[in-house]
Amino acid sequence: MTRSGTLDAAEPADLDTARRRLATPERLREFFRPRSVALVGASDSSGWGRFIVDSLRTAGFTGALRMVHPSRPTAFDLPTVPNLRALDEPVDLAYVLAPTRAVEGVLEDAAAAGIRNAIVLASGYGDGGGEAGRALERRLVERAVELDITLLGPNCLGFVNAAGSVAPFGLGIVPPLRRGPVGIVLQSGALTSNVLAFARAHQVGISLLTSMGNEAVITTADVVEHLVADDDCRVIGLFLESVRDAPRFTALAAAALEAGKPIVALKVGRTEAGQRTALAHTGAVAGDDAVVDAAFRQYGVIRVGSLEELLVTAGLLGSGQVPRGRRMGVVTASGGACDIIADRSTDEGVAIPGFAEATTERLRAVLPPFAAAQNPLDVTGVILADRGSAQAGLGDVALDAVVDDPGIDFVFNMVALPAVEPPDPSLIERRVAAIAASRDRSPVPVVNFTATCTDLSPYAQSLLDRHGLHALGGIEFGLKAVGHALRWQETRREPPAVRAAGPAPTPPGLPAGSWSEARGRDLLAGSGVPLVPAELVGDADAAVAAAERFGGAVALKICSAAITHKSDIGGVALGVSGADDVRAAFARVLAAGRAATADVDGVLVSPMRPPATELFVGVTVDPSFGPVLAVGLGGVFIEVLHDVALRLLPVDAAQVHRMLGELRGAAVLGGARGTRPADLDRVAEVVTRVAGAAAGLGTALQTLEINPLRVDGSCVEALDVLVVTS
Amino acid sequence: MTRSGTLDAAEPADLDTARRRLATPERLREFFRPRSVALVGASDSSGWGRFIVDSLRTAGFTGALRMVHPSRPTAFDLPTVPNLRALDEPVDLAYVLAPTRAVEGVLEDAAAAGIRNAIVLASGYGDGGGEAGRALERRLVERAVELDITLLGPNCLGFVNAAGSVAPFGLGIVPPLRRGPVGIVLQSGALTSNVLAFARAHQVGISLLTSMGNEAVITTADVVEHLVADDDCRVIGLFLESVRDAPRFTALAAAALEAGKPIVALKVGRTEAGQRTALAHTGAVAGDDAVVDAAFRQYGVIRVGSLEELLVTAGLLGSGQVPRGRRMGVVTASGGACDIIADRSTDEGVAIPGFAEATTERLRAVLPPFAAAQNPLDVTGVILADRGSAQAGLGDVALDAVVDDPGIDFVFNMVALPAVEPPDPSLIERRVAAIAASRDRSPVPVVNFTATCTDLSPYAQSLLDRHGLHALGGIEFGLKAVGHALRWQETRREPPAVRAAGPAPTPPGLPAGSWSEARGRDLLAGSGVPLVPAELVGDADAAVAAAERFGGAVALKICSAAITHKSDIGGVALGVSGADDVRAAFARVLAAGRAATADVDGVLVSPMRPPATELFVGVTVDPSFGPVLAVGLGGVFIEVLHDVALRLLPVDAAQVHRMLGELRGAAVLGGARGTRPADLDRVAEVVTRVAGAAAGLGTALQTLEINPLRVDGSCVEALDVLVVTS
Repeated sequence: MTRSGTLDAAEPADLDTARRRLATPERLREFFRPRSVALVGASDSSGWGRFIVDSLRTAGFTGALRMVHPSRPTAFDLPTVPNLRALDEPVDLAYVLAPTRAVEGVLEDAAAAGIRNAIVLASGYGDGGGEAGRALERRLVERAVELDITLLGPNCLGFVNAAGSVAPFGLGIVPPLRRGPVGIVLQSGALTSNVLAFARAHQVGISLLTSMGNEAVITTADVVEHLVADDDCRVIGLFLESVRDAPRFTALAAAALEAGKPIVALKVGRTEAGQRTALAHTGAVAGDDAVVDAAFRQYGVIRVGSLEELLVTAGLLGSGQVPRGRRMGVVTASGGACDIIADRSTDEGVAIPGFAEATTERLRAVLPPFAAAQNPLDVTGVILADRGSAQAGLGDVALDAVVDDPGIDFVFNMVALPAVEPPDPSLIERRVAAIAASRDRSPVPVVNFTATCTDLSPYAQSLLDRHGLHALGGIEFGLKAVGHALRWQETRREPPAVRAAGPAPTPPGLPAGSWSEARGRDLLAGSGVPLVPAELVGDADAAVAAAERFGGAVALKICSAAITHKSDIGGVALGVSGADDVRAAFARVLAAGRAATADVDGVLVSPMRPPATELFVGVTVDPSFGPVLAVGLGGVFIEVLHDVALRLLPVDAAQVHRMLGELRGAAVLGGARGTRPADLDRVAEVVTRVAGAAAGLGTALQTLEINPLRVDGSCVEALDVLVVTS
Repeated sequence: MTRSGTLDAAEPADLDTARRRLATPERLREFFRPRSVALVGASDSSGWGRFIVDSLRTAGFTGALRMVHPSRPTAFDLPTVPNLRALDEPVDLAYVLAPTRAVEGVLEDAAAAGIRNAIVLASGYGDGGGEAGRALERRLVERAVELDITLLGPNCLGFVNAAGSVAPFGLGIVPPLRRGPVGIVLQSGALTSNVLAFARAHQVGISLLTSMGNEAVITTADVVEHLVADDDCRVIGLFLESVRDAPRFTALAAAALEAGKPIVALKVGRTEAGQRTALAHTGAVAGDDAVVDAAFRQYGVIRVGSLEELLVTAGLLGSGQVPRGRRMGVVTASGGACDIIADRSTDEGVAIPGFAEATTERLRAVLPPFAAAQNPLDVTGVILADRGSAQAGLGDVALDAVVDDPGIDFVFNMVALPAVEPPDPSLIERRVAAIAASRDRSPVPVVNFTATCTDLSPYAQSLLDRHGLHALGGIEFGLKAVGHALRWQETRREPPAVRAAGPAPTPPGLPAGSWSEARGRDLLAGSGVPLVPAELVGDADAAVAAAERFGGAVALKICSAAITHKSDIGGVALGVSGADDVRAAFARVLAAGRAATADVDGVLVSPMRPPATELFVGVTVDPSFGPVLAVGLGGVFIEVLHDVALRLLPVDAAQVHRMLGELRGAAVLGGARGTRPADLDRVAEVVTRVAGAAAGLGTALQTLEINPLRVDGSCVEALDVLVVTS
């Protein structure tokens, strides 16, 4: 199942507006809860039809199911009508199985019959149908708008609404279908099966799952907006090939964060190979992945690398036991598991502090003498073997002691659950009940997990369900999920600056193209950005006079809007002192400039600064996400290591602080190389002002770059400025 | 279950030699294949005893099982004898369930009865038994040696020999127990259950699995040596808390590599928290993890981060379909899966090249018109639905075309397998048979995988087994496994320099402590390491004369064995030119040196060199692994980013080449910062000679450091030398 996203560029704004009216949260609420469904083009020989009928049954659909076929009298043991007009009353949703050429006629029938919602399975539109396919898809949108039909697809498998007990879905669903808090939107068809299978195996309950197809009418963003509003959904899971309307996506992400609904996203196209593949499969334009990554981090979208990580993370976030602090108490019956957990928790920035004395004492009273009463806790294999003894309940007693420890923010509790009901289930039942009892009285969340990512058997799930317990699939994905949950909480506590509705209006009278440095300096000075002093001079005498005023050595730079790479043409002289040398340098720099262009404003004279830490601060415009701020350390950090932190504008000082902390060379700012430690508050303030200056250019902004921004303790100064507008 | 490793330091060499005689491959072959087993201290109320009896049954043990109990007449429905001496004939193995205080008596009985092998479950020895426990464990080793008993444990659950159908193992084994090529050694007790459960769920067959306990007699290295020799084992999986005898471990790793048996290791204690935990749990000394990591990479030991990764990787390596090149053909029925695979394959350095025209043509002939005949291939969901149509066999036909593509080294083929046998199994059976047929005629390995890491159902496993097929657990772990297999193959093709049996003898007449730089220079010059010219002078006139001979600016450095940090005491003057300045600098440097120590050899005068790329080259001695070579770039790379590559000595030039490639700042050597590209062959040659000079110091070596090694194209020179010996 492939999909398409090529309509964006060609789609006129009014058609898009009309399309959006079909996919409002109100329309989607109705769309995803049909009380009656018609299958159009269903015949007993169709695998898709069989799957849809079975899926509706598995979901517990009790509404009317009508069959529509032009020639056959029955389908799936139900009588047919020849077309939708022949229905005695309209259905809430038509699932169109008809071939591509017949789809438009079916939609007309649907509208005539008073049907407002349709799923279209057929492919050959934007998805590999070439130019003709794209034209066909545009026509489909136009017809849907004219006919007032909310349409999912084409090239789409439908949806599974577990919360609403309705699943018009063209693949098999292995029962049972677990209802739960996780709403899932997939820009992929076939992965739906894999998602449902893993969710089933890991006790992850679904509210709504949709396969988006080509998104001709209903888009991923529309469904996310619906899920943010939908009370059945508490966590949103996404499989994304592309982020099509980036500003809308970030606005929705901000709304989800505000609403306390985490978004967990597997966004592919991370790598060049992935981008090529996503392009091939969808025709969608995948944005620069580093920008996607920054946008996700900034707006609290949890980015994962695998389907397993997506679902285990969503399962934790929907479990009601979400860690809120980084201090973890660990309870296991395996020293080896403790070792693995200790390593992996360090990777995730999770601490395992020592237990308080009171906790240790309570543990010592119950542990066997050879076990250490420490965090992470291994209650030892005794609990596995000595069933009859007083130590049978050891793990539970230990958990009950650990939840009371005053120094931890949550407990990570390993559970071992049987594949099938044992001959005497009382022991395991008592144990699970004891975990639930500890959880109930625990002042901190209790996160249960299994050692590895193996399926939770139906019996194990029934045991856990009885007490509302959830177990994460393995240490590996479990700790990744914990790390994600903690970072999400932190972003939620310190949300990003609310995004402007759109770019600021462009001030009048801006030049187009690259600016002279003098003009760029004026812009920044007007925004309160400190700059190294500079005088624009037109002759050698003035240069000498300026140099004398500054005292010491000076730098001379050609000043011209036409010259962006001054050094390359010999337009820069550094460390010049003495009147004669200044004169000579002035002449040399000016001659070099005039050799390059007639449009020379003069020469900038500035005092030389002693070596200090140098930052790169730049704002560029991403075609999807708009203005992006990049901050990095100069020298090898940016040239060799490409060590930059990115954020979408607007940013506040707190965001810039975080950006600085993300740099691999962050220690340099702390004075690691013998320089004065940077005043990070001052740096953040200046960078925020630079970002503000860039934002003030509105849609004219192309590039604003300070390279370097010199940082010497709390003395922060821009030494060189480049501005390019359109 | 905790374990101990604290005996090493205290154990005298002769006891260790005697112990080793009990754990030779010959003895272990016998140990792990008992035809008769006695359970000593077994009673019906013991959970351990129940587990052992059940495990033996699950493994298909058909030998004699004898029960020994001092007072009870029967155990597990078998008659008992009161002690081992009362057996009518000796058993091959005694499993000792008796409490700690009774163990020694049982071993005496065993020896008296002619029994040579024992497993000891009891704990309270080195594992948390304190000083008394450690003494008890030493006594246990001494008694085992005296009694000629090969002993596994104490504090150990036993082993599972699936290949030999015998499992004296103190935890439950959920049947079926799958035999196969993977031998597993665990420095953990409780994790054995988790390993067996995951292996069972993922079709990973086991030859031998051992829980090592305290390793009083049989050590992990002993079992690895046994597995390298054991024909039932083709892949070795390890869970390691510590590498105790590092030279023996690397020698075994080299032997395994030579034998073509990959070792896959989950070594914990990666992080500080992990090391603390491992220490707490075992008392073993965890080595510096960066050295462990380098040693593993160098000797082809595959290091993994989770139990899942361990077992999926071992499963691939044992499957007989191991990729040998990095060009991958991908066949799936999901565009979304293709996207994920493309991203993850880039992470693993695996390429997905375009198909040859002939392949594309064959695919176009069978694919639906809207599907793209490209690599990675999505045959589309049509195969899922159109059961009756000609396209039902589409995936198989596509796979059959792709295996013939001349540009790929292996095929990564996604399979979807049912949880239970469908009403009509013919379709899935045909499909699996077709995969097997393609595999059989494929010139390249075919690696099958499922989309996510969910259990393979017993039905799915029976389908695969019928054709000798194996499916990896999910894209995530599957591609990690592929990456590991490829790196292992590459190491195998270019194995590390064979390690010397021990350090070279220390040459006579070496100084102890830090050397004067002049003496260090002599050592390196003698090994053919190029050095910046230098003259050791004793007075200002000689300094001036030396400076004149060199021409241009010079550096003056105090030369004294007593001064290791020359700059810190003012003992260095750089960029000095002119006779007067040289004189003044000489006086200053000498005075600074004399102020610090009476032991001054003079002043070294060297020509200044213009800026160029600087490397750090150092050899230090790891307490476990011995001499370790570190190579890094100077400046921020080493100071801020700690960007160094490590290898155990000896190294050859090929290894040094790889080290340079591993540096994050490697681009600098290519000329990224405007410097001349480094002559990497020359650099590798010089670094290899530095390593040789260090190795030549034998056990006296403490540190040999060149900082910097100046690299300017093919001009490579040591500018500063530090040597410390003991």
